[in-house]
Amino acid sequence: MNFELKAQDSKSKARAGVLTTAHGEIQTPIFMPVGTVASVKAVHQRELKEDIKAQIILGNTYHLYLRPGTDIINGAGGLHKFMNWDRPILTDSGGYQVYSLSNNNKITEEGVKFKSHIDGSRHFFSPEKSMEIQRNIGADIIMAFDECPPYPSTYEYAKNSMDMTHRWLQRCIDWLKENPELYGFEQSLFPIVQGSTYNDLRKESAETIASHPCDGYAIGGLSVGEPHDEMYAMSDLVCSYLPEDKPRYLMGVGTPANILENIALGVDMFDCVMPTRNGRNGMIFTSEGIINIKNKKWERDFSPLDPNGTSFVDSDYSKAYLRHLFAANEYLGRQIASLHNLRFYLWLVNEAREKIIDGTFASWKNVMVEKLQTRL
Amino acid sequence: MNFELKAQDSKSKARAGVLTTAHGEIQTPIFMPVGTVASVKAVHQRELKEDIKAQIILGNTYHLYLRPGTDIINGAGGLHKFMNWDRPILTDSGGYQVYSLSNNNKITEEGVKFKSHIDGSRHFFSPEKSMEIQRNIGADIIMAFDECPPYPSTYEYAKNSMDMTHRWLQRCIDWLKENPELYGFEQSLFPIVQGSTYNDLRKESAETIASHPCDGYAIGGLSVGEPHDEMYAMSDLVCSYLPEDKPRYLMGVGTPANILENIALGVDMFDCVMPTRNGRNGMIFTSEGIINIKNKKWERDFSPLDPNGTSFVDSDYSKAYLRHLFAANEYLGRQIASLHNLRFYLWLVNEAREKIIDGTFASWKNVMVEKLQTRL
Repeated sequence: MNFELKAQDSKSKARAGVLTTAHGEIQTPIFMPVGTVASVKAVHQRELKEDIKAQIILGNTYHLYLRPGTDIINGAGGLHKFMNWDRPILTDSGGYQVYSLSNNNKITEEGVKFKSHIDGSRHFFSPEKSMEIQRNIGADIIMAFDECPPYPSTYEYAKNSMDMTHRWLQRCIDWLKENPELYGFEQSLFPIVQGSTYNDLRKESAETIASHPCDGYAIGGLSVGEPHDEMYAMSDLVCSYLPEDKPRYLMGVGTPANILENIALGVDMFDCVMPTRNGRNGMIFTSEGIINIKNKKWERDFSPLDPNGTSFVDSDYSKAYLRHLFAANEYLGRQIASLHNLRFYLWLVNEAREKIIDGTFASWKNVMVEKLQTRL
Repeated sequence: MNFELKAQDSKSKARAGVLTTAHGEIQTPIFMPVGTVASVKAVHQRELKEDIKAQIILGNTYHLYLRPGTDIINGAGGLHKFMNWDRPILTDSGGYQVYSLSNNNKITEEGVKFKSHIDGSRHFFSPEKSMEIQRNIGADIIMAFDECPPYPSTYEYAKNSMDMTHRWLQRCIDWLKENPELYGFEQSLFPIVQGSTYNDLRKESAETIASHPCDGYAIGGLSVGEPHDEMYAMSDLVCSYLPEDKPRYLMGVGTPANILENIALGVDMFDCVMPTRNGRNGMIFTSEGIINIKNKKWERDFSPLDPNGTSFVDSDYSKAYLRHLFAANEYLGRQIASLHNLRFYLWLVNEAREKIIDGTFASWKNVMVEKLQTRL
């Protein structure tokens, strides 16, 4: 894996780069659609490539481990082949879902015992187990197994958790050294900075994480309920301690405005379920602001869904038609909203990239952030 | 509207024709995907055209009247514009759904009082009202308002019902004469033959219906629970009394085998929710037989969904992947199954058409009917 910086904004810390993987190039900054159980909900893989123009997608290790199971994914020759996606994939470590979704999880130095949210069956994840599962899934980028402390956390909890995350990272690295890749291409481990919202812990974690030579570095434990200003402060601080020449991935973020603000702070990669999950609830993100398509005000608005939109759904369907589909609880409504929102997120990060390259990012960002938060 | 017969099979009563409407040509025999509330469930209009290759779709008057309502469809300039579908559309009369879906319906000579299945609100459909709604929806083919008697029905009930359907037909014709089209193109009324499973009633109804000069004729009241042999007998009998030079539409039929058998009896047009509804439940129709994709036997079958299939989903996705999507209750599973099944139905009727034209229909049909009913 190789990362090349192409441009840096003079009025912010925003960067434009190219990340090269075994499954192709990724132009950064980039947004990664979330394909939890080997499917980005309600969109075809063909649409992901040709209409949404996704360059990399994310899979969730916890979900894939439970269904269909690593044995079946391995039988298919890895996740790329199983789901027919030949561009890059990133998998998370499973940790976050173990803490947030499973029942009765119990965290020790060794790892985490938990019960499946599907059938209550008992399982155990450790750094080694997470690596083994991610080897079998076969993503291009795999994530270190960490603990993601809740917000707020006491200083003591956050520090102990961070220290354990650092020890777990070494176990991940050790396991990967001893266990070669399965499918003939490189898998890059991204370690994760933790430390809750404590400046000194974030600094310590960023320095510790950065001391390991890796292809990229992630910022975890944000977008878990803290105010946006605290998220930006932590992101800013952490980026200042991470290597300049490697991509930085802010996990689980966020709204379109969150993404632009974090790009300005030097973040290169993002993922979030918001475009699909909120889309399925009728929230449509556009360059002029946010539409709640369920509102009666759109009932007789026969204008295109998004006149500035760049995918076929924006011109093929009207606001009134999409509102009707939501009112009638039709599948197609969720499909249109998901496809539109994902394309919008990909368009937005590509616009940011072009503005960084042509030197107009900072002023454009300030105008856009205002617009993006407007309720239409 | 114009219908031209292109070929007739020498060993059966199968016909191949071309039906020309204001929104383009339809090659018969044809299957019409059902787009109940202005959406063929779980497929985009673009997929309907380019992948499924649908030539005409069906809308349900009862559903569209309740949601979004004729006023909104009229505001959009008719259903074609509202849903962005520029090929032909057929709407049913609303009668069948009033009897099968609504609560407390009460049928009199004047019409049918009923309560909405959505919110219990009270409504009244009559032949005139059905025509008025269908004028506003603006389909190319509109259906006469009839009563569809249940199976089994007593001879007396079936006869009285049929007589009323004939009187209602005249009221439909009278209303249409006095009320011009709204959107600048022709709407053709298809009357409906009733008579339950009584030979003499079916003959009487077919002759009565055929005495009205119309652009096409429909056979109603079948596929409502009667044995397949009775359906075929009625269809055969009715076709023998309908004009040779007009298209014949068998409403609500059916399985792939049902469709081929009825093509052999001289039917030209079909509609059914089976490919989409059964698809959403995991039933996949193929040229080799029927797959229940939820079965464990497909869990590790990484071969293409349908190697003989003619749409992108057949090669893009494996059986194991589709099974996983159903096991995980993912939207994409329903989307793939719906698209595949609809394309399969359209492929099947087009194959039938080509076999009719090249004179090999009857023997091909017998082989196919066997295969189509095999459980894989």
